[in-house]
Amino acid sequence: MSRIITVAAAQLGPIQKTEPRSSAVARMIRLLERAHRRGVELVVFPELALTTFFPRHYHADIAEADHWFETAMPSAETAPLFEAARRYGIGFHLGYAELTREADETGIVRTRRFNTAILVGPEGDILLKYRKVHLPGHAEYEPRRTVQHLEKRYFEVGNLGFPVIRAPMGTLDGLNLGMLICNDRRWPEAWRVLGLQSVELVALGYNTPSLNMEGGGFEAHHLRVFHSHLSIQAGCYQNACFAVATAKAGVEDGAELFGHSIIVNPHGEIIAMAASWDDELITADCDLDMCRLGRTTIFAFDRHRRPETYRRIVDQVGAVEPPVWRKAEPR
Amino acid sequence: MSRIITVAAAQLGPIQKTEPRSSAVARMIRLLERAHRRGVELVVFPELALTTFFPRHYHADIAEADHWFETAMPSAETAPLFEAARRYGIGFHLGYAELTREADETGIVRTRRFNTAILVGPEGDILLKYRKVHLPGHAEYEPRRTVQHLEKRYFEVGNLGFPVIRAPMGTLDGLNLGMLICNDRRWPEAWRVLGLQSVELVALGYNTPSLNMEGGGFEAHHLRVFHSHLSIQAGCYQNACFAVATAKAGVEDGAELFGHSIIVNPHGEIIAMAASWDDELITADCDLDMCRLGRTTIFAFDRHRRPETYRRIVDQVGAVEPPVWRKAEPR
Repeated sequence: MSRIITVAAAQLGPIQKTEPRSSAVARMIRLLERAHRRGVELVVFPELALTTFFPRHYHADIAEADHWFETAMPSAETAPLFEAARRYGIGFHLGYAELTREADETGIVRTRRFNTAILVGPEGDILLKYRKVHLPGHAEYEPRRTVQHLEKRYFEVGNLGFPVIRAPMGTLDGLNLGMLICNDRRWPEAWRVLGLQSVELVALGYNTPSLNMEGGGFEAHHLRVFHSHLSIQAGCYQNACFAVATAKAGVEDGAELFGHSIIVNPHGEIIAMAASWDDELITADCDLDMCRLGRTTIFAFDRHRRPETYRRIVDQVGAVEPPVWRKAEPR
Repeated sequence: MSRIITVAAAQLGPIQKTEPRSSAVARMIRLLERAHRRGVELVVFPELALTTFFPRHYHADIAEADHWFETAMPSAETAPLFEAARRYGIGFHLGYAELTREADETGIVRTRRFNTAILVGPEGDILLKYRKVHLPGHAEYEPRRTVQHLEKRYFEVGNLGFPVIRAPMGTLDGLNLGMLICNDRRWPEAWRVLGLQSVELVALGYNTPSLNMEGGGFEAHHLRVFHSHLSIQAGCYQNACFAVATAKAGVEDGAELFGHSIIVNPHGEIIAMAASWDDELITADCDLDMCRLGRTTIFAFDRHRRPETYRRIVDQVGAVEPPVWRKAEPR
């Protein structure tokens, strides 16, 4: 019996600074209704799906940005989304800014802020939580940027690793689910840590500016989309998994986010793609048995991986310079 | 002053079982002549470039295959290639089967066999040697395969790591050079270990069958080429380097190898591609300053990598199953 799940990327158009959460949630519920009509069993919403991408706005006092964060999930404002999904029996993935009182690694309980995503089961249970590890951007105001990207200011590095869970979804008794958030998708290390836990489907939300302001904006627009797709396609191929990668898209607070949400199969092929910069649902049937070919042949990790040669990946953070070749002295 | 080097992938058509090394070397010298006329400073030849891809032939006694191996480099048969390259002042990369008497990890000197590549400088010096780490295929005869792929039989896993060297080439005082061989290109770990040594250009030779016999040949031909390109493009983008990836192509001993040699820039773009399945030279100017954008922004490893979350990459060889989600008991 094949293991097929029908999934959707529920791309969101821009959420302006003044748009309340209740409006964003109402838009997501409309996408859930479309998903239900199309037989979808799992819907992936974007990163930070409830508000504008606020890390483009600088506050000297970080706490002034706390109103962009969620202190409970579900909350009064997000409960209707949970209810609609449960009513339809649809699982979903939601990204949001998380504000929590929690012990840090030294044991001190303090206010902590993460860029978080959750996977919610068809009965409304939170199956898995992930906190973004690869925070892009910068921590201080940078005058040379016309648009700031202050993720390193507002968020701590995620402290939950890259978890994978086997959970029921749709008609499947169990499906190995993992998550990445936005910039994580560019890092093959993150994909591999999921692959080493037999992930079958990666839910991935993003808010990615069309222009890379860092380094003066050298990258052409089409390369930004290409790089996003390239990273996701390679991650899926090299770990024999599906991905549902969902954008927030369009011109938000005057800054352009590219769309091009995609669903990718374990061959690295794009099997569905969003073409608008607005709220849009794209769907695909994913036959999870397709994961088997890669992981039992070319990417049978147990037969082919050579971790003894990979030590630099964990022993180094930054790059080192290589040795300089010198001509041997004549003997 | 920009740092530009003109490079070439010197694709080889098939080398049949009966074709002597002298003939293969003569073909490579003709490609060097073309390269010289086109102003090329570094030429990349394929993996196992001197003979047919012999791991498709089974010998019960491994030593019966020793005639496919080189015991010296240069040798009488390869010396003309070294001489031609020195005459033109062109550096080159050459893949070959290496037979050596060498101490193993227990200190015992014995006969050892590796799938090896060398980088040779414009004055004929061997700048760097690499021995293939990710050996594909199998060690024993497999009757279900119409064509064998016995790399795990004939070669030991390379014991030189993934070295990078800074060496002069063309008009450049120094260029950070690394190597991968064939199946290595599918493994992001290998690319990252090169990237962590600031590699600027990866020389990569391959002999890849158009059909994956493993698992019954489920992969369509076009996916085989796509997967090769996808892996190389992602490796270049995610490590901000160039690659020159050179195939042996065409129908060799009745088995088809795909061509599609490519040169890729640090954006992951294909900037040159071979279109024949024969001896063919493709060239490109590589401006090494292009490596800087990636490695100072999105892939500034020192600012963004989180090795504490990558432990599974070295602590595990194969994949593990994830935990199974259980609904919490009502409290």
